[in-house]
Amino acid sequence: MQETEHSFYNRGMLSKSQISFIKSLHQKKYRKENGIFIIEGIKSIVEFIQSNYQVHSIYYLEQYRSLLPALPANIKLFEVNNAELDKISTLQAPQGILALVNIPESPVLDTKTLKNVFSLVLDGVQDPGNMGTIIRTADWFGFKQIICSDNCVEVYNPKTVQATMGSLSRINIYYEDLPAFLKHIELPVFGAVLNGTSVYETKWGKEGLVILGNEGQGITPEVMKSISHPVTIPRVGHAESLNVAISAAILCADIARNF
Amino acid sequence: MQETEHSFYNRGMLSKSQISFIKSLHQKKYRKENGIFIIEGIKSIVEFIQSNYQVHSIYYLEQYRSLLPALPANIKLFEVNNAELDKISTLQAPQGILALVNIPESPVLDTKTLKNVFSLVLDGVQDPGNMGTIIRTADWFGFKQIICSDNCVEVYNPKTVQATMGSLSRINIYYEDLPAFLKHIELPVFGAVLNGTSVYETKWGKEGLVILGNEGQGITPEVMKSISHPVTIPRVGHAESLNVAISAAILCADIARNF
Repeated sequence: MQETEHSFYNRGMLSKSQISFIKSLHQKKYRKENGIFIIEGIKSIVEFIQSNYQVHSIYYLEQYRSLLPALPANIKLFEVNNAELDKISTLQAPQGILALVNIPESPVLDTKTLKNVFSLVLDGVQDPGNMGTIIRTADWFGFKQIICSDNCVEVYNPKTVQATMGSLSRINIYYEDLPAFLKHIELPVFGAVLNGTSVYETKWGKEGLVILGNEGQGITPEVMKSISHPVTIPRVGHAESLNVAISAAILCADIARNF
Repeated sequence: MQETEHSFYNRGMLSKSQISFIKSLHQKKYRKENGIFIIEGIKSIVEFIQSNYQVHSIYYLEQYRSLLPALPANIKLFEVNNAELDKISTLQAPQGILALVNIPESPVLDTKTLKNVFSLVLDGVQDPGNMGTIIRTADWFGFKQIICSDNCVEVYNPKTVQATMGSLSRINIYYEDLPAFLKHIELPVFGAVLNGTSVYETKWGKEGLVILGNEGQGITPEVMKSISHPVTIPRVGHAESLNVAISAAILCADIARNF
């Protein structure tokens, strides 16, 4: 391995307190308290380094060092062994490299940025994997913003971060009191419901919000009132419902078709 | 609670060997050895009772008994308490009722049934959640059959079963040596690839197979040779790829649009 001249380069055992600190970040309470979350895998880490996020420190097996790009001097580097990585990883099969990233201050949503684009609105999405998959899918289809109700799952949940496959670094996520937020919106508000217009006949136009609801309960009654354009994905077979990330993807794909 | 006259009704502690038997079914090895898998949640259990599957036994908290339909006399019933259910459940938050279901004999695929319909073909899908979500989505869009490569994840994996939300009881799943199977197919073979015709310009026609590949590697080279119609979901934004269940859903929705 090439020696690094990086000023915070460390090789040797992680201390017990370092390990217990990183393990604490597996839990929401400590992520919030410390303002730090965990990302894993070389691809995601490279994407976060190149984003507006501030990477705090990186923990890697020797062979991953050379895969990292040039790094800002303030990122701390720790070469670790497999046993250490197993301890700090959130994954059953750790991916050789893990980083801590600072949670940015909650961004303030400027509603002007919602003009002339489509944005997703999530009302009570609870499953971390669904949240992550929605972020990844939104990124594929060129959506820039996702507005979440206050009771949606935290996007820094390790399962969410993992499911975004790096897309979390590119999508702006806002948490809002949805009913209050929607009151001041003067855009078409589409919503995925069971008895709306077929998605195949929906005229999307050039801008709007697209609301998706909770996995079990769907969209809350108060948020439902704001929907100007109810949309339904027609059922041909027998399943009772679609997974929320699947519904989101089908609507995003249909909007992208009309770009 | 109403007393049941069901002949195999049992109330009282599960034996240690019962608990250890059911727990063994959390693992693939013992599911295969015993030909039994686990389903959980009242909705799924009702759907399996009404399907061609043979339900072997049902374990429930008292308040779930009245939610069950009339049952064939050969299904064994066990009223359990929360502690017992926690032990036998595969879920972090058990849903009050669990059943064991016999794994049917591997069905033989009659290729005549592939005429005049669309069927999904999965080449090395590994994630249990993805597999389950694909089955649920296929069921929504009226697909009847899914053909899996031999190395796909087992559909009786508890995470897969859970993600199907009961749709597993309605979809025929076949495991095949894909390259050998595809050699004898005289249908249009669509495949989700990175450099194909846009899905929005694809003419689906009235029948065909739709191949989706592994989460990381995509479709294997040998299977790729059988694709007559490569299809791509156009990317507008920056994500490197789409989740395989998301890709499957977007293709299914586009096919359903043309039904």
